[in-house]
Amino acid sequence: MEPRLEVLDRAECLALLGTVRVGRLFFTEGALPAVQPVNFRLYQEQVVIRVAGGAKLGAAAAHSVVAFEADDLDPDLRAGWNVTAVGRAERITAVDDLVAVSGMWLRPWVDGRRAHFVRIGLEKVTGRRLHPR
Amino acid sequence: MEPRLEVLDRAECLALLGTVRVGRLFFTEGALPAVQPVNFRLYQEQVVIRVAGGAKLGAAAAHSVVAFEADDLDPDLRAGWNVTAVGRAERITAVDDLVAVSGMWLRPWVDGRRAHFVRIGLEKVTGRRLHPR
Repeated sequence: MEPRLEVLDRAECLALLGTVRVGRLFFTEGALPAVQPVNFRLYQEQVVIRVAGGAKLGAAAAHSVVAFEADDLDPDLRAGWNVTAVGRAERITAVDDLVAVSGMWLRPWVDGRRAHFVRIGLEKVTGRRLHPR
Repeated sequence: MEPRLEVLDRAECLALLGTVRVGRLFFTEGALPAVQPVNFRLYQEQVVIRVAGGAKLGAAAAHSVVAFEADDLDPDLRAGWNVTAVGRAERITAVDDLVAVSGMWLRPWVDGRRAHFVRIGLEKVTGRRLHPR
């Protein structure tokens, strides 16, 4: 029997995102799709990721539309959930926000260099939960 | 201390993909990025996913370039691995391939309907392993 599929509303999606710390950022790099695992937190109903630089930051700087995904699924896709957010990536530059956001990480510094923080507006959030029958 | 990053070669990436059964497919749906968890197997050095229809199948039919990602990571991104493959998605239609591929699933049928199988050519495979210091 295939699992029953429950469509989650925005509040349920945000609550589930709060239960994990690793997600995946999907973006475009040199006209090709790319994926990178990211450590994230929720802040003001946005996904905030910490990046050390590189393509992710480039995508953020360009205000490009990215997809962010997090999930907790069993190996056969019979139970668990997944949430996808699509939104514009934007580097966080306001001091207030930087202070608040960096405090959410135990180590906001990477190898002595300050990390950058990128927020993704959650304009479109979709989620599903699988219920085993 | 940040984890040490090891870049994996193609053989290592394929070996790791063989240890999990759930991945994530990143594609374009209505000009917007979309992500969907998928059950997958490796077949002839390609990622084969089973789909019940919908956008994923549409992407496959259109021979679009998609990104596929699988990982096994700890919550703080200090240990584990991730592999990303970028390639053209293509619906499997040859009978020989369909028989071989559907046999890799315990239940190749979805609710009495035949599932479709889509293969993703692994033209570009990248992977990283994180080693805690």
